Amino acid sequence: MNRIKGTIEIEFPSEEIAKIVYESVLFEHLSVPYRRSKIEFKREGNRIVLQFVAKDNSALRGTLNSYLRWIKVAMDIAEI
Amino acid sequence: MNRIKGTIEIEFPSEEIAKIVYESVLFEHLSVPYRRSKIEFKREGNRIVLQFVAKDNSALRGTLNSYLRWIKVAMDIAEI
Repeated sequence: MNRIKGTIEIEFPSEEIAKIVYESVLFEHLSVPYRRSKIEFKREGNRIVLQFVAKDNSALRGTLNSYLRWIKVAMDIAEI
Repeated sequence: MNRIKGTIEIEFPSEEIAKIVYESVLFEHLSVPYRRSKIEFKREGNRIVLQFVAKDNSALRGTLNSYLRWIKVAMDIAEI
């Protein structure tokens, strides 16, 4: 079996904006248990960082789609 | 505007297998110009490494979906 790991970093214009987006998505992150991919979701200054480990390519694709979509929705709502 | 960068590493059981998958996907990588995300696609021993930079969350989602799907198809065909 193969192993997939990775990082995605999203840099925002300010820490304030990163915080707004992070807190909106954090709610989703905490409420959905992703058992097929392990994902760490954190904020570091003006960046949101996703770190993940998965064994299954399709599961990872689903997980990344969800996070990237939640981030986009949060940005659209906050008009960023 | 925000900036997204990241890395995804897929580890295979052997260099041989990584090579088979890499070469199948390389064909797609070279034939599709992704202008909205910049992506580097390489093999390092038994790992396939994707490095990307994007300005647009949706474009990146599309790009990652394509690469992860191509990798899965190559693995299915090679029965890995």
